[in-house]
Amino acid sequence: MLLLIPGPVQTRPEVRAAMAVDIAPWDRDFFPEYIAIREKLRDVAGGVAGQHACLPLQGAGHFITEAAIRSFIPPQGQPGAGRLLIPMNGAYAERMARLAREAGRAVVTLPCPDTRGVTPAEIALALAADPAISHVGVVYSETGSGIVNDVPAIGAVVREHGRRMIVDAVSAFGALPFDLKAQPEVDAVVFTSNKCIEGLPGLGFAICPVERVEQAAGQAGSWSFDLADVYATAQRAGWGSFRFTPPVQALHAFGIALDIFLAEGGQPARLARYRENCRILYEGGRALGLKPYLDWKQQGPIIALFHQPEHPGFGLQRFVDALKRRGVLISNFHNTVEPTFRIGCIGHVGPDEIRFALGAMRGALDELGVRRRDAA
Amino acid sequence: MLLLIPGPVQTRPEVRAAMAVDIAPWDRDFFPEYIAIREKLRDVAGGVAGQHACLPLQGAGHFITEAAIRSFIPPQGQPGAGRLLIPMNGAYAERMARLAREAGRAVVTLPCPDTRGVTPAEIALALAADPAISHVGVVYSETGSGIVNDVPAIGAVVREHGRRMIVDAVSAFGALPFDLKAQPEVDAVVFTSNKCIEGLPGLGFAICPVERVEQAAGQAGSWSFDLADVYATAQRAGWGSFRFTPPVQALHAFGIALDIFLAEGGQPARLARYRENCRILYEGGRALGLKPYLDWKQQGPIIALFHQPEHPGFGLQRFVDALKRRGVLISNFHNTVEPTFRIGCIGHVGPDEIRFALGAMRGALDELGVRRRDAA
Repeated sequence: MLLLIPGPVQTRPEVRAAMAVDIAPWDRDFFPEYIAIREKLRDVAGGVAGQHACLPLQGAGHFITEAAIRSFIPPQGQPGAGRLLIPMNGAYAERMARLAREAGRAVVTLPCPDTRGVTPAEIALALAADPAISHVGVVYSETGSGIVNDVPAIGAVVREHGRRMIVDAVSAFGALPFDLKAQPEVDAVVFTSNKCIEGLPGLGFAICPVERVEQAAGQAGSWSFDLADVYATAQRAGWGSFRFTPPVQALHAFGIALDIFLAEGGQPARLARYRENCRILYEGGRALGLKPYLDWKQQGPIIALFHQPEHPGFGLQRFVDALKRRGVLISNFHNTVEPTFRIGCIGHVGPDEIRFALGAMRGALDELGVRRRDAA
Repeated sequence: MLLLIPGPVQTRPEVRAAMAVDIAPWDRDFFPEYIAIREKLRDVAGGVAGQHACLPLQGAGHFITEAAIRSFIPPQGQPGAGRLLIPMNGAYAERMARLAREAGRAVVTLPCPDTRGVTPAEIALALAADPAISHVGVVYSETGSGIVNDVPAIGAVVREHGRRMIVDAVSAFGALPFDLKAQPEVDAVVFTSNKCIEGLPGLGFAICPVERVEQAAGQAGSWSFDLADVYATAQRAGWGSFRFTPPVQALHAFGIALDIFLAEGGQPARLARYRENCRILYEGGRALGLKPYLDWKQQGPIIALFHQPEHPGFGLQRFVDALKRRGVLISNFHNTVEPTFRIGCIGHVGPDEIRFALGAMRGALDELGVRRRDAA
């Protein structure tokens, strides 16, 4: 079965195999492996030893996002309370807003269609209009629609206005370029083990300026989600230790996936592979008579959406089931207002797998009787 | 290598092997597996279909404990604020208190030595003295010292006083008896995948009365840790779905471990095996000249502690390293004030493995030159 959900992604056999082992997370022999993962991730993010820290946290991407929000944005009703501006161009922006609000952080939403990235000019206007905005929260790659928000360009505007930024890079990290040392306005870039680095799910990571982490002490309002405590604990233990039992098999397998990522050429190589996957998928889908959700110039490399065919024979679950019988698994839900379906371009997949998926899509559309006769 | 840390525990090969597979968590074919795990766990806890719900959460035991505290105890400074009484007889009681305080919940600590369980009479006195206490938080098996708090007896007192209870059963669930339908005062019993059910780490579970979960809506102050939302989302999806990406390999492997647990005779059989492991370890340690931390009548079946020998040749890390060279891994830290070391009795281990560990201990003590000549 080919997983194009996307995320958890299709993994390599050697990455999966690394899950099937008992490991004592506090064993001294595991420390170097754990330290190496954090240092490599810091480097991938463009961080600098001693200036930036990679802080792992158990759980899903929502958890590390909430941890970053709690740790860096002072809560409402306290002196120095922060305010988080979020451009609302997709489901994960909505989720970031909900995470922040339920954590008692003030949120300002910036309306933006989910068919394009927010522009730096729009961010600049919003920041100028509200000096109380302390942070901008940006979803780098919006899995809900497939668009990309231009984090380096948005960051420049945030920097000019003297504000801070939190980057949800869950489905972007490792594929889209990111350079923490060139973006000193960033408090945290967060991501998980099971997306573009092509590991398995179980933990998230935040990469942060050490100075900011130290200033964040006592601010989270949650011990579990306190990144300052994650950092302090790791420092006390010479970087060797988690605070609480980690999903250590997922961590071990992630380390192997990370080494493969680096050996393959790192971020530029991964972006090139995903972009090519996406191009083949986008063009192939059009050739099947499907209408992409995004204009090509707005299409990010991570996930492509197509409108559901307006045909009585089409149903999303029926289509998903028909694809599955052909060996391809895609999501059985959509995050857009309009009915769409989505296909991932990430994971251990290349042009051959995408062409295989297109063949399955053709077969599934034919089975449902909805493919246009003039389509390829 | 034999893991007696304890937790993550030594697992069976077939449980570990189940980790090495790609799974789409939202695939309809996975739903029945996920539903079955939750229903079996509810039954193990003595819950009743329709009246009790098993609510999984990504991450470590601390996370599911914080989620239960946040979901069921109204925060300070709001109408109807709760107050959590915690008998402080070990490291995990301390951790529960910290989790609650940092989440803005009022905590009342009940001092108690870590060498015995708290008595129901002590709980009754504390409840009578402070009518504002809404909840009692009890660690069922205290991994820090090895004692057991008598949850059924404490629960009876809590019930009589009309208060509620949260049970941290992380290192107890599946081994110590628990019957939710006989303990209607319990809001949540929480545990993880990697202890007495003998799965691998990555997620926690809370089993709760449905009525109480529904009443808890909007109270958590954290979307990630809102058990009412975990429940509502699962209900909307016909119980089939996680809210956020789960550590699905750990979940799949846990399901296999749970089936083995049930096939082996469930909780009574597991308790019998662990008790026998502990008896052999306790007696064998004494025969080596080691002094147990607890009196035998206070010794729980999950973990046994021994005082570190007062000898210049002994150092905890040196001892741990010497044991490791002999194929046994134990914790390299202790949670007691006095210097101790701790050895787990849980996981896929029986008398043969415990005797093997005792042989390794003898060898390690001899290597360090600290074994008494008159000891066995």
